[in-house]
Amino acid sequence: MTQTKRDTENMEIKNSITLAEYIFRRLRSSGTYSLFGVPGDFNLPLLESLYHKTADGKEVELLNWIGCCNELNAAYAADGYSRYTNKIGCLVTTFGVGEISALNGIVGAAVENVKVLNIVGIPPTHILNSSQYNIHHSIPNLKNSNSGVPNYKTYCDMVLNNITNNVEFLELSDIKNQNSNQVCNKIDQLIKNIFISSKPGYLFVPSNMTNMMVSSANLTLLPQINLDWALKSTRSNLSETIENDIIEEISQLLYKSKKPCILCDVFIDRFDCRIQVNQLISKLNIWNFSTMLGKSIIDEDNDRFMGTYNGVTSDSYVKDNFESCDLILHLGIETNEMNTGCYSFSYLPDAVIIEVGKDYIKISKHDGKISKIINDIMLRDVIQKLLHFIDDSKCTYSFDNNVESFPTYKNKLISKKSLENNVESKAQQTVTQDDLQVEIQTLFDKGDVVVVETGSFQFAIPDMIFPKETKLINQGFYLSIGMALPASLGVGIGMRDYPNCHINDNSEDATPKKLILFEGDGAAQMTIQELSSLLRYRIPIDIFIWNNNGYTVERIFEGEKRSYNDIMPWKWVNLLKVFGDHEKTFSKSTTISTVQELRCKIDELKNANPQKIIELIEVKLGEMDIPKNLKHIVEQMKLRQQNKSLIE
Amino acid sequence: MTQTKRDTENMEIKNSITLAEYIFRRLRSSGTYSLFGVPGDFNLPLLESLYHKTADGKEVELLNWIGCCNELNAAYAADGYSRYTNKIGCLVTTFGVGEISALNGIVGAAVENVKVLNIVGIPPTHILNSSQYNIHHSIPNLKNSNSGVPNYKTYCDMVLNNITNNVEFLELSDIKNQNSNQVCNKIDQLIKNIFISSKPGYLFVPSNMTNMMVSSANLTLLPQINLDWALKSTRSNLSETIENDIIEEISQLLYKSKKPCILCDVFIDRFDCRIQVNQLISKLNIWNFSTMLGKSIIDEDNDRFMGTYNGVTSDSYVKDNFESCDLILHLGIETNEMNTGCYSFSYLPDAVIIEVGKDYIKISKHDGKISKIINDIMLRDVIQKLLHFIDDSKCTYSFDNNVESFPTYKNKLISKKSLENNVESKAQQTVTQDDLQVEIQTLFDKGDVVVVETGSFQFAIPDMIFPKETKLINQGFYLSIGMALPASLGVGIGMRDYPNCHINDNSEDATPKKLILFEGDGAAQMTIQELSSLLRYRIPIDIFIWNNNGYTVERIFEGEKRSYNDIMPWKWVNLLKVFGDHEKTFSKSTTISTVQELRCKIDELKNANPQKIIELIEVKLGEMDIPKNLKHIVEQMKLRQQNKSLIE
Ligand SMILES: Cc1ncc(C[n+]2csc(CCOP(=O)(O)OP(=O)(O)O)c2C)c(N)n1
Ligand SMILES: Cc1ncc(C[n+]2csc(CCOP(=O)(O)OP(=O)(O)O)c2C)c(N)n1
Repeated sequence: MTQTKRDTENMEIKNSITLAEYIFRRLRSSGTYSLFGVPGDFNLPLLESLYHKTADGKEVELLNWIGCCNELNAAYAADGYSRYTNKIGCLVTTFGVGEISALNGIVGAAVENVKVLNIVGIPPTHILNSSQYNIHHSIPNLKNSNSGVPNYKTYCDMVLNNITNNVEFLELSDIKNQNSNQVCNKIDQLIKNIFISSKPGYLFVPSNMTNMMVSSANLTLLPQINLDWALKSTRSNLSETIENDIIEEISQLLYKSKKPCILCDVFIDRFDCRIQVNQLISKLNIWNFSTMLGKSIIDEDNDRFMGTYNGVTSDSYVKDNFESCDLILHLGIETNEMNTGCYSFSYLPDAVIIEVGKDYIKISKHDGKISKIINDIMLRDVIQKLLHFIDDSKCTYSFDNNVESFPTYKNKLISKKSLENNVESKAQQTVTQDDLQVEIQTLFDKGDVVVVETGSFQFAIPDMIFPKETKLINQGFYLSIGMALPASLGVGIGMRDYPNCHINDNSEDATPKKLILFEGDGAAQMTIQELSSLLRYRIPIDIFIWNNNGYTVERIFEGEKRSYNDIMPWKWVNLLKVFGDHEKTFSKSTTISTVQELRCKIDELKNANPQKIIELIEVKLGEMDIPKNLKHIVEQMKLRQQNKSLIE
Repeated sequence: MTQTKRDTENMEIKNSITLAEYIFRRLRSSGTYSLFGVPGDFNLPLLESLYHKTADGKEVELLNWIGCCNELNAAYAADGYSRYTNKIGCLVTTFGVGEISALNGIVGAAVENVKVLNIVGIPPTHILNSSQYNIHHSIPNLKNSNSGVPNYKTYCDMVLNNITNNVEFLELSDIKNQNSNQVCNKIDQLIKNIFISSKPGYLFVPSNMTNMMVSSANLTLLPQINLDWALKSTRSNLSETIENDIIEEISQLLYKSKKPCILCDVFIDRFDCRIQVNQLISKLNIWNFSTMLGKSIIDEDNDRFMGTYNGVTSDSYVKDNFESCDLILHLGIETNEMNTGCYSFSYLPDAVIIEVGKDYIKISKHDGKISKIINDIMLRDVIQKLLHFIDDSKCTYSFDNNVESFPTYKNKLISKKSLENNVESKAQQTVTQDDLQVEIQTLFDKGDVVVVETGSFQFAIPDMIFPKETKLINQGFYLSIGMALPASLGVGIGMRDYPNCHINDNSEDATPKKLILFEGDGAAQMTIQELSSLLRYRIPIDIFIWNNNGYTVERIFEGEKRSYNDIMPWKWVNLLKVFGDHEKTFSKSTTISTVQELRCKIDELKNANPQKIIELIEVKLGEMDIPKNLKHIVEQMKLRQQNKSLIE
């Protein structure tokens, strides 16, 4: 793959190139090296253009094609690619059947602010513009059904304004009526908007346009598109003064605070400010917490990392400490049910809360009174300024040194628990989710990439301690099950295109990083065929399948014994063999039932670094066994439901 | 299953019942006995209501729950259920993640006029109406993003007016502000509209409403909803006279014709007029043809069945005969690319063309001049009147008795071909798609149900001769691959709920019918996990997997050797074992490479009737081998493309 990458980079660009070449080169110039998808009549000309003949007759791939088993999986993979690389994850689908199949992946990206671009190959312009044809994959025109002619824009209309505003539907006039730059500008603008909004986008390309010629001028004028450029080129007209004033105000509040903390949230990741925030933390040396969705942005080995705060569902140690702070600098805030412990955040009576959002700052007091809101101010700029302007020598805070960091506190508990687990009788017992919480974190090494599926086990994650630069990938709010397995494919491809891109100083770090996936059995059944693509593209990975006989997290709410929460029992350990590793040369599959076996397996996996194969580990769990945190949440939800029924 | 069915039918209905019970009973009363889906927080209360406690404390299931591996597959299954039974195929999904995952199945149903109802469990009304909460699975409000509150109607907005008009979003006021009948009327109306439009529909049900009480009065007043009632209750105000006049006019045209034919199209199936059309054919004894999408509606053993007409892509015998007719009575017409051989229908210069559409009649001449259009006249009424009013004794046509029916003509060709195939050397050769066309049809028996996936093999179907009352199920225009396998699950469940419902006189016919699926390897990989549900619900079926190493039909267009048309090679014959039939008690899997092996297998399958298990037959085919018909079509398409490029 890297081969292809370099080949193409040395390749000279002609002045006039095909639209398809323009699109693929533009994507490369924004950092995307691979793309995912499924072929279809209307995108074949586009796919064919991936293979570029150089002057000396050699054929190179402009981008690496990663074929997926279906479009939804391709969308999840593209999402995973973007979450890991912070570049645009791209998928190519065919008109109607493809884009609609992929839609749940795109909606997930929209909800979770992930930069995914769906390029849709659509019928040629003479079909789109004719009033005679009803071409396959198209939907009857409900608004004017008598015409007999479909609305070829229906699928576009559905997503525009509902899912995302980043939508371009190319038309012949974009090339013909003006100089061909118009179509290039549209594409550039779309890519820019995806970066700025951190939302998915759509590019609808008529199949006959892909081979039309456009000017490559934009590529020469602007050889690279990235987040910084995108932000700068749309910098708000908010005067430098207002921006500096608010930074100054925040600094002053901080200087006065006795017990301030940083609460690090998910937009820090999406706007690529991880390094800066970690620098800010080490500069200020104040308590720092993660939100549920922000988990793994902060390097948890810092002295004052105090855990994941999620309101009432938090570990009580974390909760008590957080709720004793007098200033909360909430960076990259995203407010929703999952990220706020069902809206149960609580602050010290006099606390000052400074929310730094994607594009705004809000300062308020514990009583909810807002003292200031500044809009149109971009997160990345704010973080950079905070880092530069705050004078840590002016800080006057005093933390109680008796209060240990969360990792220190937690590790003590764990070593106790681990000792228990070592007791012979315990070690022979079946694994519980509480055991998992203790054992699994011993698997992680610095820089590992951990993909976690929606399901009961996900709730064990917040209180695990991650080594430095671990990257957690989890669709924590949209919560569409089946996402994680195909997303791992995207992450694996991302790790190949960008080894160590999540490591602060990646020039120095050569230790290989593991890719690990945790997947429930019910979720796994949704998208299982993509295991096959992990084999096809030879992605080494450790996959844990939690075999608890169905939809446990649903059983907890309702229908413990109902068949609607059952699934078919599969022979998990034979899957990879059937899906392509017939000789078992690239995979190994094991079933685990006891704590002892789990420990051995983890040791084995740790020693098998660098990962060379796919390890699938089926872990048998109790049908009604769930992590402690989830119990809290379920109680909260039930309480809320009861309260509501009383009111109505 | 039938047990449950009878149990519930004898069950008395209380005056006041829960909304959920109302919904399920109403569905039963319209003929739906099973429903498909995946659980989720917001539909659990609904699912729980499936289990109904009778007065004597016994628990019965109001409808059979069929759990699927994912929502798209559930939608395909519901679609299959409806295509087979002509009742509403129902699926239950959870808010956002569920309905969006299922969407491609619903769009397919919309495009192909299939009666599917997606019941979506959505958040409780206090959440929907609050301006405070951002609940999981929901999407930010793009129209008012500053509010921080999602638009819980986004998903509903997307489908309404784009995919279907049959959408009900239940609100508390439907129960509270008026007597509770309002909500019942809404539901009844929705079901009625699904029947009348033959389009899918949506019912959005807030999770807290499912247990609210409503009156069961509607169920007593109208104990059954069916197509006839639905049509009658919305009978157009077109006067009886106009209706009779046009029937008279058609009759007169027919009486004058020397060589008339019936061209039977897909809406005849959707509006359940199969029996009547077959009666009309035998009454009139005129030439009759199927369209591509209408295939299998006509009993092909009638003396004057002349094959499937699809313009230039037709068998030349069929084409010549069709194009020699002087009157075409095109019943149940659906006009689109696939159904018209890429718009290449051709008529005799003086021919009269009578199109009877879903809700209109159009009479025109060969030159395209329309002599009459009548709107708002329903297909089912027209067919019934034609059957009753046409006086066959007045017909004056004279068919050349030297022209054999298509089956007679075809069978001669086939016996020649079969003889060739019997030659020792040929029998040992690898199977070609031309062989398939000859051999496969020997598998079919009267009343078999044949599900055909989109892909190269599909094009071998039109010219196969089906025994009487064979039912073909194929998504012939939307063409979403992966649909057929889960659809077979729905068909299988439908065959259990309604054995023999596709048999004219099903009281007399006790011979068991086979369920047969033809599936490409690429398509199979899209939705393979649903094999597991075939095992779970013990659906006997013969499944042919065409192993031609990837996306052959795409290779033909572009990229013969490209990796984007490759798929991972699977061990097909081990799949069922892994997916739940660990001891191989309910399945058998075989690989076939030669014509001889194929013939033996077919004999074996024919003898194994009634089917008792799942037989998976992997057939190895050449990578670039396609059926004759498809070659025609590809030529047509390429020609059209070339012409277009010349024009531009
Ligand atoms: C696409 C989709 N469908 C349905 C749901 C509802 N749902 C959430 S968790 C879950 C069960 C997950 O089961 P499993 O993966 O086995 O994990 P477990 O809870 O058993 O550990 C379901 C069905 C969902 N979130 N997404
Ligand atoms: C959901 C969806 N994605 C993509 C396509 C485009 N497409 C049509 S046929 C086909 C290949 C089918 O391959 P296979 O099932 O192996 O059948 P074959 O043509 O090889 O016989 C593809 C990818 C489609 N129709 N639907």
